[in-house]
Amino acid sequence: MFYTDNKLQYPVRVDTPDPLFARALQQAIGGVEGEIRVAMQYFFQACGARGNPKFRDLLMNTAAEELGHIEMLATAVAMNLEGAPLSLKEEGARDKAVEAVMGGMNLKNLLSSGLSAMPVDSDGVPFDMSHIYASGNIAADMTANIAAESTGRTLAVRLYTMTDDAGMKDMLSYLIARDTMHQNQWLAALEELGGMTGAFPIPNSFPQDREKTEFSYAYLGFQADGGAPVPGRWGKGPSIDGKGTFATGKLHPSDQKPDLGMARPDSGAQAEQIAG
Amino acid sequence: MFYTDNKLQYPVRVDTPDPLFARALQQAIGGVEGEIRVAMQYFFQACGARGNPKFRDLLMNTAAEELGHIEMLATAVAMNLEGAPLSLKEEGARDKAVEAVMGGMNLKNLLSSGLSAMPVDSDGVPFDMSHIYASGNIAADMTANIAAESTGRTLAVRLYTMTDDAGMKDMLSYLIARDTMHQNQWLAALEELGGMTGAFPIPNSFPQDREKTEFSYAYLGFQADGGAPVPGRWGKGPSIDGKGTFATGKLHPSDQKPDLGMARPDSGAQAEQIAG
Amino acid sequence: MFYTDNKLQYPVRVDTPDPLFARALQQAIGGVEGEIRVAMQYFFQACGARGNPKFRDLLMNTAAEELGHIEMLATAVAMNLEGAPLSLKEEGARDKAVEAVMGGMNLKNLLSSGLSAMPVDSDGVPFDMSHIYASGNIAADMTANIAAESTGRTLAVRLYTMTDDAGMKDMLSYLIARDTMHQNQWLAALEELGGMTGAFPIPNSFPQDREKTEFSYAYLGFQADGGAPVPGRWGKGPSIDGKGTFATGKLHPSDQKPDLGMARPDSGAQAEQIAG
Amino acid sequence: MFYTDNKLQYPVRVDTPDPLFARALQQAIGGVEGEIRVAMQYFFQACGARGNPKFRDLLMNTAAEELGHIEMLATAVAMNLEGAPLSLKEEGARDKAVEAVMGGMNLKNLLSSGLSAMPVDSDGVPFDMSHIYASGNIAADMTANIAAESTGRTLAVRLYTMTDDAGMKDMLSYLIARDTMHQNQWLAALEELGGMTGAFPIPNSFPQDREKTEFSYAYLGFQADGGAPVPGRWGKGPSIDGKGTFATGKLHPSDQKPDLGMARPDSGAQAEQIAG
Amino acid sequence: MFYTDNKLQYPVRVDTPDPLFARALQQAIGGVEGEIRVAMQYFFQACGARGNPKFRDLLMNTAAEELGHIEMLATAVAMNLEGAPLSLKEEGARDKAVEAVMGGMNLKNLLSSGLSAMPVDSDGVPFDMSHIYASGNIAADMTANIAAESTGRTLAVRLYTMTDDAGMKDMLSYLIARDTMHQNQWLAALEELGGMTGAFPIPNSFPQDREKTEFSYAYLGFQADGGAPVPGRWGKGPSIDGKGTFATGKLHPSDQKPDLGMARPDSGAQAEQIAG
Amino acid sequence: MFYTDNKLQYPVRVDTPDPLFARALQQAIGGVEGEIRVAMQYFFQACGARGNPKFRDLLMNTAAEELGHIEMLATAVAMNLEGAPLSLKEEGARDKAVEAVMGGMNLKNLLSSGLSAMPVDSDGVPFDMSHIYASGNIAADMTANIAAESTGRTLAVRLYTMTDDAGMKDMLSYLIARDTMHQNQWLAALEELGGMTGAFPIPNSFPQDREKTEFSYAYLGFQADGGAPVPGRWGKGPSIDGKGTFATGKLHPSDQKPDLGMARPDSGAQAEQIAG
Repeated sequence: MFYTDNKLQYPVRVDTPDPLFARALQQAIGGVEGEIRVAMQYFFQACGARGNPKFRDLLMNTAAEELGHIEMLATAVAMNLEGAPLSLKEEGARDKAVEAVMGGMNLKNLLSSGLSAMPVDSDGVPFDMSHIYASGNIAADMTANIAAESTGRTLAVRLYTMTDDAGMKDMLSYLIARDTMHQNQWLAALEELGGMTGAFPIPNSFPQDREKTEFSYAYLGFQADGGAPVPGRWGKGPSIDGKGTFATGKLHPSDQKPDLGMARPDSGAQAEQIAG
Repeated sequence: MFYTDNKLQYPVRVDTPDPLFARALQQAIGGVEGEIRVAMQYFFQACGARGNPKFRDLLMNTAAEELGHIEMLATAVAMNLEGAPLSLKEEGARDKAVEAVMGGMNLKNLLSSGLSAMPVDSDGVPFDMSHIYASGNIAADMTANIAAESTGRTLAVRLYTMTDDAGMKDMLSYLIARDTMHQNQWLAALEELGGMTGAFPIPNSFPQDREKTEFSYAYLGFQADGGAPVPGRWGKGPSIDGKGTFATGKLHPSDQKPDLGMARPDSGAQAEQIAG
Repeated sequence: MFYTDNKLQYPVRVDTPDPLFARALQQAIGGVEGEIRVAMQYFFQACGARGNPKFRDLLMNTAAEELGHIEMLATAVAMNLEGAPLSLKEEGARDKAVEAVMGGMNLKNLLSSGLSAMPVDSDGVPFDMSHIYASGNIAADMTANIAAESTGRTLAVRLYTMTDDAGMKDMLSYLIARDTMHQNQWLAALEELGGMTGAFPIPNSFPQDREKTEFSYAYLGFQADGGAPVPGRWGKGPSIDGKGTFATGKLHPSDQKPDLGMARPDSGAQAEQIAG
Repeated sequence: MFYTDNKLQYPVRVDTPDPLFARALQQAIGGVEGEIRVAMQYFFQACGARGNPKFRDLLMNTAAEELGHIEMLATAVAMNLEGAPLSLKEEGARDKAVEAVMGGMNLKNLLSSGLSAMPVDSDGVPFDMSHIYASGNIAADMTANIAAESTGRTLAVRLYTMTDDAGMKDMLSYLIARDTMHQNQWLAALEELGGMTGAFPIPNSFPQDREKTEFSYAYLGFQADGGAPVPGRWGKGPSIDGKGTFATGKLHPSDQKPDLGMARPDSGAQAEQIAG
Repeated sequence: MFYTDNKLQYPVRVDTPDPLFARALQQAIGGVEGEIRVAMQYFFQACGARGNPKFRDLLMNTAAEELGHIEMLATAVAMNLEGAPLSLKEEGARDKAVEAVMGGMNLKNLLSSGLSAMPVDSDGVPFDMSHIYASGNIAADMTANIAAESTGRTLAVRLYTMTDDAGMKDMLSYLIARDTMHQNQWLAALEELGGMTGAFPIPNSFPQDREKTEFSYAYLGFQADGGAPVPGRWGKGPSIDGKGTFATGKLHPSDQKPDLGMARPDSGAQAEQIAG
Repeated sequence: MFYTDNKLQYPVRVDTPDPLFARALQQAIGGVEGEIRVAMQYFFQACGARGNPKFRDLLMNTAAEELGHIEMLATAVAMNLEGAPLSLKEEGARDKAVEAVMGGMNLKNLLSSGLSAMPVDSDGVPFDMSHIYASGNIAADMTANIAAESTGRTLAVRLYTMTDDAGMKDMLSYLIARDTMHQNQWLAALEELGGMTGAFPIPNSFPQDREKTEFSYAYLGFQADGGAPVPGRWGKGPSIDGKGTFATGKLHPSDQKPDLGMARPDSGAQAEQIAG
């Protein structure tokens, strides 16, 4: 269950409203790296968590936090839209400066939501819940969370760079700090799940003798000239999961020519595709 | 540039065609954990890679491999659709068994593609390229790749469990092995980028003294009863990134009440929302 | 801000797990009439509410409730998936009954989420946040909420009809009751905003003398034979908003022929479209 | 069946073409509050209408009208794009003013449609037909239509405010008037269906003694401090549907802890999630 | 403008309702080859048609026809859903046959629309208006229309094959005939626009001396072994547009190595990507 | 299988980086007329090709070429983003010129991808793989390919017009030439498949005596005044497919009134819709 109060986690202050920055902040709400994504991802991972219940609790606790982040950002978007132009004219004359500001805005923030935030990204594309990765495998979920917080913190840093508003920089410095924590938090959870050598390859419940093991740790080249691919840690030495040794090689393709043969009658193909 | 030949990376054999398994395989083509996703993700990450060019080469090389995986799976889908019913009748009588098989299929595999594979998932939902994460931050990209291969191998393992077809199990044992390698490969790339303590928090180019550091390593509870959240590695000891120490605490909310005030005249609000 | 605990609002009990009913329940989570929609819609409406702050509070309070409904339904989906087949074979033999059950499932519930709920509808289509209507006009928002709860309760009633599981019927009888309340709640809010004659036409802040008033209360026929459209309350008597009188008539089209003329050179049109 | 002629319902005149206003008008075509939505919604509701056939006729008649509105708006978009820049240069020199105008346009209006309208919103996002609410319940459909016309008229009013073009204002004053009528029309239809006390709770065919009636008219608080939620008409007095009395209270959560237990072997979970 | 009447273009009769065939018919409504697509495509092409007005008239006339096809198909879907199971039980006992039928249905046809048609495809995926191709180039539009009618007739033929219902076969024989006409109609329009040698390459208004003409009629091989690609009409003889001669060759790649260099400071890249 | 090298097909040069042109180029990557579309369309058509294997080879060969086009365009996007503003301030002062440039950009190119290309269109809308038409009918596929290359070349021509950068014009002159070839190539393939009179109506395997032949070549008017539709080649003379003669006429509607009757009890309809 969830409960709410009428407070913000951290103060949201906008010194100089900027409709373009409102548009940029929308990415942190409804972008694929944004807060709806993490809030809903942790929520659904929690709802489907099996095994040690502490992971469910950890996930749901963080989902609650992230809901509050959406609230902060939505407030910041609305504040940045204060004073946005509603009309292309000003005192009877066409105003090119007004048109420029309006052209840079996400127009739906004006036309659809009346100067409020929306669950869309910085280009007005609505968030699509297929981005909620909740796999039923708790370690795979942790990797998805690390990725989400890594791209999320990158986004927050870019927003911090973009603005020169002291209030907005202050809010973002809080959100960046929370992303630092959340990256570490999910890395710590992965450590509890066995870390590099215990958790990987994910899922670790599949007996590796059922995979074609000659391909399990082979770094294969797909270079047109048949040459070796670029060397690196991935091509030699023990594998990171501790269960094999990296080798570098070249794939010997199958002799099989992909050929589906003729089409069946009545399958809607052209007559020429159908066996005579 | 890309080149092709008329070969498959690994043999694709279907002993007993099964239209329902064809539908399941579609998830490995057009699902968010599928092969279009990784092929295109590595491709776009390569195209945008800045810095040491070996990462570009590594990414593009693997993109070429993944394109071949889509080809294998598309061939497998078509082979499993061999013999799928095209008609609900058989010799003049309604056939309930035929109806059951057809009901379990992805009907677009019959109606739209004529018994071939499509870039859709197992429920017929088309793949949406917003799932291509290419952030411009090479370490963040690696976390996204580890996540993709972790959910990808989980999917392949589930498909392996689902089928009892020896040919399909053989093909999947190859793909699972490659997922093992790719998980390790991206983990190795992350190690080259500094690993846990060098690469994190991502992006590592942002000076941490600009974040609100009192929140950077604090595990905060959002429990309705004000109690402590569930303990774990994430709440005490050195942080995984080696740059702080985990602490557990409780957030003290801001006193700020989120209040946008009255609406502006001419903003399309109700009269009651507008200051008199 | 949001807080959570480890409780369910109302008991979730499944007497006989049914994977097909799990699929049906997904509609109540990720369908356009589902609980993600209302939770997020009330949340975003609250975040953008201007004017009397009690509407913000009412909306956010109900958003918190709806988040708990998602949690209940996600638990119900996972419980109904208990015992779902993971494999098409049973003891070495192909099992047509198993295939039928699996064919009726949303396969992503097995392949993507490992027998857990997902933010998708009953056909596996992910929820798209463009369905979050938050207009910045508090009365328009209330009409959207009434519509959401009306289709939502209709869906819940259909699910109640579909299942014969006593546990599921009990849970649904709770959710249906809450939908009854929420329909009434938003109707009551609309009453506070002036009701039929005070709030309509929405937005009521637009001076009606600026609209072409001869068309404001005219019920116009678009019948091919030029005949009158079907009579009803909408064609005579005082208008519902109390500001006009319904009339029935026929539109006299404009004499204007829609004609864009020739294409501009360099606009990518065919040569024939371009003025010579 | 449908028929067409080569006329516009109402004159479309643009005094001063404005590419940015063309972009804004796209919201009225392909936005979720736009004319494609209502045209198609009434069309599909008509096609699925059961019971008194007059509702089918009313819906289809209005669908025909709305198709003409799309046509008017598409004409207006094309007219506003007259004179839009096709090139970033002007007589050999880079022109920043040109770049500013083009930057504010929906570029697809130039690149994809050659200065014509598209079925997309003001940010270029294509209309998605999941927004067509046609529930099979005629009263629920009416609530969806009232909501559509309320947000639709709000949008039209915002467009009216935005432009200073007399031709565009004239066209919008017609469309606003029609939205006034359509709000009233669907309210009138709802009145014919029994109004507040006859139609609600929707669906009114479900026997209310099957719902958990202690929750049917209870306004429950989900406040973190356990306090009462904000008072209003929704918390006391007779319910709007006339079938109960509002009460205000607090939910007593279930004692049930959501716990899915251990994962099944072969379900693709981590080994740690699987019972030993 | 559009007008309607209360008639069907051609009789719609269902002898034996079949919920699975209802699902299949949805593809002809909301699939990418379906009738919403052509109705809306011709409508938007008409609205944006510049040049000889007869193309606008032809397009709008056909759009009106296609709207009637949607109506026919929606009626057919609803008729096929007559008698679909609403409940998984029958007289107190679980009924596996009922479950099989329901499992094969598009569940939204029951849960969301109450046994009516929806603007979705056969897998329940909503139609997305990005499939409306209206390019502003009348010849390009004709090619899109030919493609739409070609896949559309292929779909209709597959539906004809699938069903054994005499009424449905009769309706489909009408729709297939119209697709035959429409393929021919758009081919005829292309002929009026100059046909193969007059209209192509599209757009024909671009002076071909501005393209790199050595590549304009060269059939290039991208075979990994450097071999020649498969021969055919496309590799020798006069080009179809009559403006060149096909040649077969091999691309000599540019010497340019794609290299974006180092990342900029403050761009959110890792420190390792940024020039020291 | 696919192979890669570290080369570009044709040189990519940007003389003056222009962030707005980068946004425009995105349409050629992720627009529905863009290169992802053709690359993936030819790839999936190849994977599903049945009948003469030369079509598979032709398609896969061209898919390889198109992948290289995406690479070129992605490189061009990144190069055009060189020097794009990362911050709205410059040396402490708000800079309106910077804001204008940033307002015209696709903000995700900065916020999500760090100045790199993304698989989105010029308005930031992600490419959706439902645009991959692969019908299983080889002639229908060819029509889809002709359409794709026709809209694709139109787009490339518009981009050529838009830019005044000599490097970009040079790159586009290559891509336009390849589109010329590809239009001709697919027209040639259609010729091999029988051309106008052999391949049409598609699919040509359906016996035309099963269609309602009185409608197969009839150009029908749907004019509100009952008048004849606009004359043209489509209304008289031999049909293009050589199998009939065009006639012009008027449809005589069916007498059937679309009427679904009353709703079933328990179907979630209103009581008024249910037979008493």
